[in-house]
Amino acid sequence: MPITFEIVEKDIAGRIGQLKVGSRTARTPLLLPVINPHLQPVSPAEMKAMGAEGIITNAYIFSRSSEFRDQALSSGLHDLLGFDGLIMTDSGSFQLSVYGDVTIGNLETLQFQQDIGSDILVPLDIPTPPDAGRDRAIEELAVTMARLREAREELGPNAPVAAPIQGGIFEDLRERAGREAGLLGFSFCPIGAVVPLMESYRYADLVRVVLAAKRGIPPSSCVHLFGAGHPSMFALAVAMGCDVFDSAAYALYAKDRRYLTSSGSFRLDELAELPCACQVCRRHTADEIRASPETTRLLALHNLNVSLAEISRIRQAITDGVLWELVDERCRSHPQLLTGYRNLLSHSHELESADRSIKRRFFYRGTESCWRTEVFRYWQQIGRIATGREVLVAIDGIKREGFDTTLFFKPPFGPYPQELRETFPIGQSEIPDWDEDMVAAGCRGILNLIEQHQNSRFTISCPARWLDCVQRELPGTEVQVDRV
Amino acid sequence: MPITFEIVEKDIAGRIGQLKVGSRTARTPLLLPVINPHLQPVSPAEMKAMGAEGIITNAYIFSRSSEFRDQALSSGLHDLLGFDGLIMTDSGSFQLSVYGDVTIGNLETLQFQQDIGSDILVPLDIPTPPDAGRDRAIEELAVTMARLREAREELGPNAPVAAPIQGGIFEDLRERAGREAGLLGFSFCPIGAVVPLMESYRYADLVRVVLAAKRGIPPSSCVHLFGAGHPSMFALAVAMGCDVFDSAAYALYAKDRRYLTSSGSFRLDELAELPCACQVCRRHTADEIRASPETTRLLALHNLNVSLAEISRIRQAITDGVLWELVDERCRSHPQLLTGYRNLLSHSHELESADRSIKRRFFYRGTESCWRTEVFRYWQQIGRIATGREVLVAIDGIKREGFDTTLFFKPPFGPYPQELRETFPIGQSEIPDWDEDMVAAGCRGILNLIEQHQNSRFTISCPARWLDCVQRELPGTEVQVDRV
Repeated sequence: MPITFEIVEKDIAGRIGQLKVGSRTARTPLLLPVINPHLQPVSPAEMKAMGAEGIITNAYIFSRSSEFRDQALSSGLHDLLGFDGLIMTDSGSFQLSVYGDVTIGNLETLQFQQDIGSDILVPLDIPTPPDAGRDRAIEELAVTMARLREAREELGPNAPVAAPIQGGIFEDLRERAGREAGLLGFSFCPIGAVVPLMESYRYADLVRVVLAAKRGIPPSSCVHLFGAGHPSMFALAVAMGCDVFDSAAYALYAKDRRYLTSSGSFRLDELAELPCACQVCRRHTADEIRASPETTRLLALHNLNVSLAEISRIRQAITDGVLWELVDERCRSHPQLLTGYRNLLSHSHELESADRSIKRRFFYRGTESCWRTEVFRYWQQIGRIATGREVLVAIDGIKREGFDTTLFFKPPFGPYPQELRETFPIGQSEIPDWDEDMVAAGCRGILNLIEQHQNSRFTISCPARWLDCVQRELPGTEVQVDRV
Repeated sequence: MPITFEIVEKDIAGRIGQLKVGSRTARTPLLLPVINPHLQPVSPAEMKAMGAEGIITNAYIFSRSSEFRDQALSSGLHDLLGFDGLIMTDSGSFQLSVYGDVTIGNLETLQFQQDIGSDILVPLDIPTPPDAGRDRAIEELAVTMARLREAREELGPNAPVAAPIQGGIFEDLRERAGREAGLLGFSFCPIGAVVPLMESYRYADLVRVVLAAKRGIPPSSCVHLFGAGHPSMFALAVAMGCDVFDSAAYALYAKDRRYLTSSGSFRLDELAELPCACQVCRRHTADEIRASPETTRLLALHNLNVSLAEISRIRQAITDGVLWELVDERCRSHPQLLTGYRNLLSHSHELESADRSIKRRFFYRGTESCWRTEVFRYWQQIGRIATGREVLVAIDGIKREGFDTTLFFKPPFGPYPQELRETFPIGQSEIPDWDEDMVAAGCRGILNLIEQHQNSRFTISCPARWLDCVQRELPGTEVQVDRV
């Protein structure tokens, strides 16, 4: 029963895929709600009805529970939990990261996970925290990799074992870990120990670490961002190529009287309104939830509703080729997410090769849109436009006599010939009234064109409004001001 | 039974209020779902359960219906519709705008609306479309205003009559109409004939027209943006001071197999997923809704869920003082909404006086955040900072010897003294890693300070990274580059 992963659709580095283990399948991006058998405000059956195609639980808890251990071993997890979808189990590494110690071995936990019928098993990897130095990260990574090899050797190449990717905040270690996991034949890779980065809003570091791991992990592998449960960052993570999330957040936040939304969280006690369309929120007032004997359960249901809805929203965005728009929407909800998003955009040259070439549309959403993969790709392709000796780039859109080639201009892309007017991205991009940033970006397109056509002479015709901007971006180019 | 309106909380020009007519009250911002008695996919009772505190229906339809006219007259609207909340009725002006003619008079419709027990009556105003020239707009506005006077004279000063504000796209006419409605004692003003602007995405014009009307309408009046039913623009409209919306969209979009979200619409047939947390979407797949015999009803329920949720979200944002953040989130969903939003921001100097002075927080969400009311207000107040002869503005945050006053720097606001470090907005603003736009905005704060302190000498200490930007924004000021 190997883990297989089939990619169905792509956008940026994100994918819609089909994750399969034996007869069980789940669509990705996929959210696995975390099940704690001792404390379960929402039942797995209810989760299924809400659209959850998989869940994750902690094998360590089962192995140490006098209440559940025997039943898990005799009837199996699916029966015990009343859930026939995909069930992944964690090994005890989480406990290791919290308590520093765990009384179970690698093969022991893998064997136990297999015995209780888990669909995806996790070895006992070492979660290296972000504040660990390089020596510690190297040392711990070596242990993790040895345990992955041990899992392969003992359970065989077809066992549905996940390969956690560690390496702390060191990009080369994360990349190497990803590459080695691929070489060992693992097709399901949880990127581990990133929770402290998310808890402290270090989204720029999160982007660095995840992109590094992704550089190493084979593109055909399914990638799980371990411990990522807040819906506000799912879109960013998917854009980097993460396929699976797990949410303990829905329950932990509920227990803490906190209310999740796709753009941040509220404390229940500060809510005057319930700003959500879910059944819990349309059928209750904030006061009613506060006064209910079921506060935690109602909040958990709401939190799960919005988390699952966000996954649907992301899948639809990939289908439509508008994932950048969704990432932009989500990442402005917190300034540190915005920093992370800008960091991701600074890798557009790297992401561009994975991105699909035709999209449904391009909506300009602010300065950040100038750095999207589609803009980089257009700048790269611009050199291929055939030009004559005398070239006019008509920023003002007006054709003039005396030129062999006339190109028009659409920011943030740049110059385009008439025949590309209807094609992506020129034809399918919608922009607001021009702003300085998009015109400057378009000038970079002109610059790329000029550099690729050393034998042509370029004239730019420009409305007075944009003259300063164009002259600053294109020093030394002849610019005719439009006197209209 | 006059219409009264009490403002409870403010943010930008938006308000949370209590609208009251007789014994019926409703909280604003308020969405009135439109009821068409002939075609009702969701019952008023269901709407109530979903959180709708008021509805609107068309008196003209009732007056012309052999099926409903007598029953409306004998039992009253509330009984007929099974809704004990606030009911507003339209007069037939909508039919006038669509068919160009209507077989009812002003007093006749007002009398009929009164007779069927409507809570808020609308005179037969003339909806001047945006493409009408100035002469026509003036002429039609005169008719509307005459009918408002007629309503006042015939029904008395306490009749719950709304005063539609017309004037086409002419700002002075809209402002004058608003002022006259106020002088006539109307406390509920629907801004009319803006639907064509919204249908053609002319949001910059919408902002112009609404702000103009608002300049005339007394701040204490309740403002209804007539025909505004798409949740993606509610936040923008509330920020301008609109309090009430009506949604036929929930039903019309459903009939047209379209699916509303707070950031745009989808065609049902293009949805692979249902990207929403509402009960309809968590309990059905897109395929199931397409195949259902109840497609229209399910879509209408979903559309209403998200529309009402958006109203809750806006109320909560006003409570929290984060309405600008929500407007920013919503308005980036379409480039033309972004143009409208930028237009609104260009009026921050005008909006600033209505805005509240202390907010919970200020989250920087991109360049547009530099133009927010709070930034303008800070720039205005900056002159009051007391300074000595030699002033250091430490952009690099490092105190130095030899200065009488040291100010620190937080973009996009600008310089601040140590003692303001904890106060709003310096202490409660969160910003991402600095960018060029916010530093330039902060320099404008420095400029305001310099202008107000002609007897001080200013030195700026600046990290090399921002030197170009600072020198460009502050020509002639001494800038010491930080060599760290």
